[in-house]
Amino acid sequence: MTQAGLPWTPDFETYPIEHKIVSAIVDGNAVTLRWDDAKSSRHHALWLRENSPDKETIHPLSREMLLDPLDIPEDIHPIQAEIAENGALTVVWSHGGHVSRYHPGWLRAHAWFDDGAAAEHADRPPVLWTAETLPSPPTFDGPTALADDDVFLRWLEALRDCGIARLESLPVQDGLLEEIVTRIGPIRETNFGRTFNVVVKDDPDSNAYTSASLVQHMDLATRELPPGLQFLFCRANTTSGGEGVYVDGYRIAEDMRREEPEHFEALASIVWEFKNRAKDCDYRAYGPVFARDPEGNVGEVRFTPWLRAPLKAPLDEQRRAYGSIRAFMRRNSERRYQIRLAYRPGDLLAFDNRRALHGRGSYDAKGGSRYLEGCYADRDDLQSCIRTLRRQH
Amino acid sequence: MTQAGLPWTPDFETYPIEHKIVSAIVDGNAVTLRWDDAKSSRHHALWLRENSPDKETIHPLSREMLLDPLDIPEDIHPIQAEIAENGALTVVWSHGGHVSRYHPGWLRAHAWFDDGAAAEHADRPPVLWTAETLPSPPTFDGPTALADDDVFLRWLEALRDCGIARLESLPVQDGLLEEIVTRIGPIRETNFGRTFNVVVKDDPDSNAYTSASLVQHMDLATRELPPGLQFLFCRANTTSGGEGVYVDGYRIAEDMRREEPEHFEALASIVWEFKNRAKDCDYRAYGPVFARDPEGNVGEVRFTPWLRAPLKAPLDEQRRAYGSIRAFMRRNSERRYQIRLAYRPGDLLAFDNRRALHGRGSYDAKGGSRYLEGCYADRDDLQSCIRTLRRQH
Repeated sequence: MTQAGLPWTPDFETYPIEHKIVSAIVDGNAVTLRWDDAKSSRHHALWLRENSPDKETIHPLSREMLLDPLDIPEDIHPIQAEIAENGALTVVWSHGGHVSRYHPGWLRAHAWFDDGAAAEHADRPPVLWTAETLPSPPTFDGPTALADDDVFLRWLEALRDCGIARLESLPVQDGLLEEIVTRIGPIRETNFGRTFNVVVKDDPDSNAYTSASLVQHMDLATRELPPGLQFLFCRANTTSGGEGVYVDGYRIAEDMRREEPEHFEALASIVWEFKNRAKDCDYRAYGPVFARDPEGNVGEVRFTPWLRAPLKAPLDEQRRAYGSIRAFMRRNSERRYQIRLAYRPGDLLAFDNRRALHGRGSYDAKGGSRYLEGCYADRDDLQSCIRTLRRQH
Repeated sequence: MTQAGLPWTPDFETYPIEHKIVSAIVDGNAVTLRWDDAKSSRHHALWLRENSPDKETIHPLSREMLLDPLDIPEDIHPIQAEIAENGALTVVWSHGGHVSRYHPGWLRAHAWFDDGAAAEHADRPPVLWTAETLPSPPTFDGPTALADDDVFLRWLEALRDCGIARLESLPVQDGLLEEIVTRIGPIRETNFGRTFNVVVKDDPDSNAYTSASLVQHMDLATRELPPGLQFLFCRANTTSGGEGVYVDGYRIAEDMRREEPEHFEALASIVWEFKNRAKDCDYRAYGPVFARDPEGNVGEVRFTPWLRAPLKAPLDEQRRAYGSIRAFMRRNSERRYQIRLAYRPGDLLAFDNRRALHGRGSYDAKGGSRYLEGCYADRDDLQSCIRTLRRQH
């Protein structure tokens, strides 16, 4: 029991008690709870038993289940259920004389209510943007963000919601990019390295390493799961040109769903192959340009013109595929969708690589130097970091 | 033109010429080719134009497309198509006087034939196994595999096909695990580090760091894409017990599809939340136990009992969920599905973390020492490495 006299919970969250349990009724192999706001919830015996916060069932340190769930008898059922004076639910089990005590805040948070409330696992809906609604990325002072967790959290939440957010005025230092990104989570290494330097190379193994312009695209479309996050840290820039161009792929997708539904459907269903061209590796992945989640929302835009492999399809399907991808590219090239920005030394652009497509204008590599340092991470890490920082609030 | 007088190709593959083009006919905005085996293929103008292997279209070094595909006029069409003496297809375009020459082996490999041939992007079908058909992992001599690319490749192909393969008799050296894995691809770092040591810890943040038995499970079910590959290198083992247990999750899934179709369907459709319990991170992911690819094949088994979060669902759905997951666990616990093995110092177990579930028997941490070093990588890297090694054959 905790100091408050309530049972501990099977995780490290805190559960404020906003509602009290009024009654607990055993009903075969389930317990029905009635709450003080007249709602009721039903809990299966196996559900209750495996989540019992006692040290035989759940490791008190790791909070992970210790029991092999098959060791819980299939026919286990409550023989008694009651509400203790401190509000906890107490269940006496049919087997082994085991008794479980549950925190009412935890029960409330994990109960299912027959009220059509949306599933809580849905991410916050993204904030879709165009150049008009978001002329430049949400921007935060870098040194302040590094010193103040609240500002750091606001930067991450902007990245989560808009798919792009910037720190500015950072000192141009070796190792700073890694230091910042590893505060969020592990760096995702690729065959381009742990970090990579976007500079002009003599023997480029990617268009990125030339001074050519690049149409807005994702990186690493050739992977089963392309990195969810990309970071570009401007360490030097004395060139004219080479500006950054960003579009909200989700916004383009939603506009096309409404305005060009046939092209939207083709982009969401025709599977392209993405394949790198290199002497020493051969990555391939398959997917539609717009990947929809089970709710039908576009959750990924897979688009890199120079990594698309030749489509293997009947002529009609070739026509439909090229018609739709050109329609997508037309929007991708429209100024109204584009945030355009100059990279200033000390700028750190963070963006969702599977949502905010990025490109650049061409530049004259002889007219100055331009040096962006980049790396990748995953959406998982961003979300975990945001949740953990919020816990500390 | 290459030495053979044939055009180069827009990638680094080699394309043996097994069939010749007999005729090329312009048909509106497409070219129809007839081949020497009486097959025919049709190629859309935009398809042909963007894959034209010339240095304005494709960078001769990176082999990536240089053109913005929108710069190709929508109404481009061939005004002439013919077969050169060396077998190449030559196309003269309606715009800009551009001429393209295509390697016949490349064209054949990327053509679509109306003959119902299976899509070539399908991975090799996995070799499903039980303890009877595969009593122990495919095993190769470690030092030989490291010295001989052919043996290394056979180890990787066994891992791809069976989801598990072992090297044995490796020297127990610091850094060797990383050296071997980075020959395949980048290590996938997680919040448990770049590599991790499976030993008993005083303050475990995971059940892995206790001496308790662990039922067969995947690691990192809490990620959008759990790592595709896991490596466990045995550096010391003087305990009795702690044996490794592996099951083929794909095999269990296919047996259930046939023998317990209702449970299979529930496992393939009910979405569980997987959530870690830790003070300093909060990873969550959602998915069914059996994830099916678009063809309906199970391509991932997401199962870790102690990371399953409480299901938020009506009582009937709770019943269905627990019924099906217990049916899965019963098979998971059956000896007939299990490879059981002792970890010997110098053994390196490689397995597909999303297919071959792994577990261990409990052991007496006071009865000796046991030290496994582990790390993760992704399926992409395995496949790229296999393709690249095969190219050199």
